[in-house]
Amino acid sequence: MKRKDFFKGLAFGTLSLPLVIRGLGGKSVGQRQSGAYINTTKTYEWDMVTTWPPNFPVLGEGCNLLARWVEEMSGGRMKIKVYGGGELVPALEAFDTVRSGAAQIGCGAAYYWAGKIPAAQFFASVPFGMNAQQLNAWIVGGGGLRLWEEIYAEFNLVPMVGGNTGVQMGGWFNREINSLEDLKGLKMRIPGLGGKVLERAGGSSVLIPGGELFTALERGVIDATEWIGPYHDYKMGFHQIAEYYYAPGWHEPGTALEFFVNKTLYDELPVDLQQIIQSAAAKLNNWMLSEFEAKNAIYLDKLIQEEHVKLRFFKQEILDKLRDYTAETLEEITASDPISRKVYDSYQSFRKKAGFWSSISEERYFSQIQEKQTGVIN
Amino acid sequence: MKRKDFFKGLAFGTLSLPLVIRGLGGKSVGQRQSGAYINTTKTYEWDMVTTWPPNFPVLGEGCNLLARWVEEMSGGRMKIKVYGGGELVPALEAFDTVRSGAAQIGCGAAYYWAGKIPAAQFFASVPFGMNAQQLNAWIVGGGGLRLWEEIYAEFNLVPMVGGNTGVQMGGWFNREINSLEDLKGLKMRIPGLGGKVLERAGGSSVLIPGGELFTALERGVIDATEWIGPYHDYKMGFHQIAEYYYAPGWHEPGTALEFFVNKTLYDELPVDLQQIIQSAAAKLNNWMLSEFEAKNAIYLDKLIQEEHVKLRFFKQEILDKLRDYTAETLEEITASDPISRKVYDSYQSFRKKAGFWSSISEERYFSQIQEKQTGVIN
Repeated sequence: MKRKDFFKGLAFGTLSLPLVIRGLGGKSVGQRQSGAYINTTKTYEWDMVTTWPPNFPVLGEGCNLLARWVEEMSGGRMKIKVYGGGELVPALEAFDTVRSGAAQIGCGAAYYWAGKIPAAQFFASVPFGMNAQQLNAWIVGGGGLRLWEEIYAEFNLVPMVGGNTGVQMGGWFNREINSLEDLKGLKMRIPGLGGKVLERAGGSSVLIPGGELFTALERGVIDATEWIGPYHDYKMGFHQIAEYYYAPGWHEPGTALEFFVNKTLYDELPVDLQQIIQSAAAKLNNWMLSEFEAKNAIYLDKLIQEEHVKLRFFKQEILDKLRDYTAETLEEITASDPISRKVYDSYQSFRKKAGFWSSISEERYFSQIQEKQTGVIN
Repeated sequence: MKRKDFFKGLAFGTLSLPLVIRGLGGKSVGQRQSGAYINTTKTYEWDMVTTWPPNFPVLGEGCNLLARWVEEMSGGRMKIKVYGGGELVPALEAFDTVRSGAAQIGCGAAYYWAGKIPAAQFFASVPFGMNAQQLNAWIVGGGGLRLWEEIYAEFNLVPMVGGNTGVQMGGWFNREINSLEDLKGLKMRIPGLGGKVLERAGGSSVLIPGGELFTALERGVIDATEWIGPYHDYKMGFHQIAEYYYAPGWHEPGTALEFFVNKTLYDELPVDLQQIIQSAAAKLNNWMLSEFEAKNAIYLDKLIQEEHVKLRFFKQEILDKLRDYTAETLEEITASDPISRKVYDSYQSFRKKAGFWSSISEERYFSQIQEKQTGVIN
């Protein structure tokens, strides 16, 4: 059959193709008896432990939304109570708390668990890694989810993407960064892989809790800090004390947030509730990136028009060197950990193809189609 | 209170902020009595009429997935039978069929209804308009959905986004396009606004059903055709007969697919089923763009490595002129239709801010962060 006939047949409805289903979890509908099989007498009261402050803009709000959607969809059979970091357990104990079953579901970002699972970082963000759209594509359509599920299953957890920040900002600096030389000795709050890369460039990565950051930057304890993007950065007030705001956020080009559910409890759930949680997380993924994009657009404008922030861009030669340091850092991690190697290989092989496709689609959208924005940069 | 204290407070869990909920539809959970309130005796057997051939890759598959997810989440209380275009009613009658209630839900793309609602085009794609991520952000976080719901309510329909193709390809050409001169007299299958723009450039937009396209291009009835992107284009076999494959798809930089539900029937649904349909559509939005990105990456590679397709890029001067013609076309539409004007104003005002944010985030991701892909273009 010629290829064109494939579609021609379809257009006339004469072909009956086997349908490829790539959804998450669940058994085929056809295997079950038809009709309602919901158990309305069994209800679930779950606790969600999160790594965010309670009701934290976008991220914590998202957890609240998920809980609301799950309750609505389940007709009140599943209620999830959301706890901010520190309310039930400290933020960074969320993973172990859900693993043990002391809470049933958690929310965070996979790179928080790099200490116990180095490979987890690829499911959140790595410097010079994929952006939100590519990462979603790898996870949903490129085999990423299968690997992630395998890895988390070892910890009795079921992972799912629950949002993305989009491309982050490069951070706030009390001096201009014009050369690699300017990174030497720079004291910056930049955790995780980004921090490791900065150290290779001669800077030092300083760990400071969010609540103490403003003061540390104001008093010169640090020279610079990254946070998230214009919306959250504005609320932190960094523009009041740091002179330069740098883009792009090379260290986090699209950070995925995650939900993780205790696997024993998840497996015991009826299919309807499993699918309800999965769908609520997917809906949140869509909501969160959209909300970040909308809010960042508004607050970037505010920062520049009202606060007259000095926006600066990292020079390409600086970024290229940081990219080299990133490759060295990832090489080191994957050399000593076979699971990281396996995930990195999948990530990179997907990225190679997706990157080429992006270069003629999304990249050309920005370079050739979207109207240039000018005249608003100080 | 200083801004930094806002977050500091949060970090210690001492602030009780009012939670802003921006979800779709539904009443506040707090207004209902707690406990299970699902009516398990009432079941729904719905028909979905679509504008796609049955089981059409990605788009039709997506409709099948939505039906499966809704059935799973509702515990079999709602079953949706999916019909391809022409199976129950002709593809382009889907809108009116759902409006009348003869079918309960439909799937298509909003620009198909431009004849009766010119403003609908902004909820699908317009030439040189927003890409998928920006469009989602406008719809979810920029007021787009409210406008869309208002407009469709006049037709007794509830709209929701149900996917996106991502940036499309520019099409297949039997000759190179090196100047605006080369567009004069060009007979191309390019429907909708893209076709109107081509006509302003001196070409002619020819309407040919999908099933007859291959033959028309092979026999020289047309000189060029656009379709979707590498995956679908490969299956159509255009590379067997057209010499040049052009990017980028200026005419459709990220086309949203839609579901529309009969509003009378939607309003009568219990909240759980309303939210289940909304969440399934949002999950599909995420799945579809990811699936398009993953498949297009693989098939672009195939087209170039195995089929040795000649990839070409539209010159900037050609695109700039087509952008001018697009502005004229949109001016004409919005001048004569106040609803289009209102939607276009919202679209453009969001785009202005989002475009600036994109220019320092996503655009710089592609120009500065993502590794350059070279050496694979013929």
